[in-house]
Amino acid sequence: MQFRNFKMVGYVVYGRGCFDQLDEILAPRRKGDAPMVFLLDQYFDGKPLAGRIPLRGKDRLVLADVTYEPKTTQVDKLAQELKDAYGTVSGVIGIGGGSTMDLAKAVALMMNNPGSSADYQGWDLVKNPGVYKAGIPTLSGTGAEVSRTTVLTGPTRKLGMNSDFTPFDQIVLDPTLTENAPVNQRFYTGMDCYIHCIESLTGTYLNEFSKSYGEKALALCQEVFLHKDHWDEHSDDQLMMASYAGGMSIAYSQVGVAHAVSYGLSYLLGTKHGIGNCIVFNHLEEFYPEGVAEFKQMVARNGIHIPEGICKGLTDEQFDTMINVSLGMKPLWENALGKDWEKQMTRQRLRALYEKL
Amino acid sequence: MQFRNFKMVGYVVYGRGCFDQLDEILAPRRKGDAPMVFLLDQYFDGKPLAGRIPLRGKDRLVLADVTYEPKTTQVDKLAQELKDAYGTVSGVIGIGGGSTMDLAKAVALMMNNPGSSADYQGWDLVKNPGVYKAGIPTLSGTGAEVSRTTVLTGPTRKLGMNSDFTPFDQIVLDPTLTENAPVNQRFYTGMDCYIHCIESLTGTYLNEFSKSYGEKALALCQEVFLHKDHWDEHSDDQLMMASYAGGMSIAYSQVGVAHAVSYGLSYLLGTKHGIGNCIVFNHLEEFYPEGVAEFKQMVARNGIHIPEGICKGLTDEQFDTMINVSLGMKPLWENALGKDWEKQMTRQRLRALYEKL
Repeated sequence: MQFRNFKMVGYVVYGRGCFDQLDEILAPRRKGDAPMVFLLDQYFDGKPLAGRIPLRGKDRLVLADVTYEPKTTQVDKLAQELKDAYGTVSGVIGIGGGSTMDLAKAVALMMNNPGSSADYQGWDLVKNPGVYKAGIPTLSGTGAEVSRTTVLTGPTRKLGMNSDFTPFDQIVLDPTLTENAPVNQRFYTGMDCYIHCIESLTGTYLNEFSKSYGEKALALCQEVFLHKDHWDEHSDDQLMMASYAGGMSIAYSQVGVAHAVSYGLSYLLGTKHGIGNCIVFNHLEEFYPEGVAEFKQMVARNGIHIPEGICKGLTDEQFDTMINVSLGMKPLWENALGKDWEKQMTRQRLRALYEKL
Repeated sequence: MQFRNFKMVGYVVYGRGCFDQLDEILAPRRKGDAPMVFLLDQYFDGKPLAGRIPLRGKDRLVLADVTYEPKTTQVDKLAQELKDAYGTVSGVIGIGGGSTMDLAKAVALMMNNPGSSADYQGWDLVKNPGVYKAGIPTLSGTGAEVSRTTVLTGPTRKLGMNSDFTPFDQIVLDPTLTENAPVNQRFYTGMDCYIHCIESLTGTYLNEFSKSYGEKALALCQEVFLHKDHWDEHSDDQLMMASYAGGMSIAYSQVGVAHAVSYGLSYLLGTKHGIGNCIVFNHLEEFYPEGVAEFKQMVARNGIHIPEGICKGLTDEQFDTMINVSLGMKPLWENALGKDWEKQMTRQRLRALYEKL
């Protein structure tokens, strides 16, 4: 099809405190005594949120280790454990940042699909709908709550399971869940949204659908990180909507140079997505002059430290690995630079860029 | 639930020319030889669009008479005809403005629900999911493409079938379909969106979700009707997104005075929704001073005639009917005026307002 027929999430609930409706929301989705499985970012271990999860019957709370971004091996292991223990489950609920939500999506899909999640990294390879799945962000910015992908690091690549079966059946957008996020992490994840917007709005794939969402998300990021002089409740409200709108804007657009380059960092060094994007974007004046200037203002205004020199001392082989991963992200480069992107982004130029980081 | 768990449309495709993907989109939704039923606004009878509908097998093209807005009797009759002729159908596809789309939603629901559609006017009364349904707007502004209602005039009231079964499974947003709309009609329908936005953004129900969508829709309306000096392709693109975003903004908000008053006009006089809203909004300075001033600028700039004097010569009984219908729209009044709206909006005050129109 010329234009993507975009699968939407099934239900959205938005509101301060709406997390407390979760029990009621899940009730009609329970299948007999098959458990709901709650994947909770381990950051919340022992924190009050863990105690507010509406566990019933055989429900299972799993602390998700997101020290690294989700791996296909981690997805496969967890899905297999659940199959061994319960046969099937009523659903998988991801509560956390982008990694936890992506893990939940992938595990829900692998409950009903044979083989390894690595078999499904790509576009429209997933064969069967997964079990019911819900996403509950505790960090705003990734857009994972509305995307049709789940980004996984596999044996040979970092690539999503992109499919119409991937979007959540339900998302619960409760801005109070983000209010105690560590300041640096909140910034890095918020910048994932800001960078999405710049890459999408300046890209060659853009249409009015994506533009409308991208412009709104951008304005909300600017409001939160640039125009306001303090963080308040309303900042949480706004950044949660920015993340949602930023995610929706990807429907008919693509991310660009920062994402393509940071995928290489992440693959080789395990650099997490939010901070990785910031490290890269900080050096992309030649591609996004206005966006990078504004980003630097936001960094300064919010007193954030962006790491430098992370590629120091890497070997030629390591640079080559990053370059290979990055240049594999063809749609991102094409969106950013146009159809002749391969002429513009040579291995030499990309190496020089990695050396700057 | 304190916060509405908002059911989203299933799939969205947006793009200039995406109507031509309809055959491919519908293919997996066909059930054996049960027909797809295309409800086409009769305005397109004999026009090229009618010839582009992908009819297959027993598919049926029905010209929708939308001289008046949809009636429960019209819905019931059409659903019964389809049941008598085919037993069941694969789906109902509405192609037209808000009336045609609402008719399609209601007929799709009544294929699987007993009794009369009048039994389901209200909130969450619909018992069973309908057949597959898709909406394809040829006018932008109503938001019917994303709403969870279908507004019907019944024996005793004008009220929607509001339910989680009501939203479309698929919407096809092709801005080229709106490009030949009559200028006055295009304006009236566009103003439905503009008035939505003003009512929603100034209302007491607003939250950040609805605000984000409402602000974007408002900015797009202003761009199209106020800032640009001519109508072009991009205006169609933008107004289609304004309509979509305006519809989404209603998720956690409500419309207000203009809608409440115009429902009375529509019930008594058959005044259509778009023009009715304009007739009313034109006299609402006391409620929406800035919005009405801007509306008048848009009217002038676009050379539009807004009818006056339409309530001249009505009897006391007729005024009473309109007042009863209007005051029945409690959530609209509460959103506009707050919890003590009944003290503010007396029958006398409302009568005086109707007399001005």
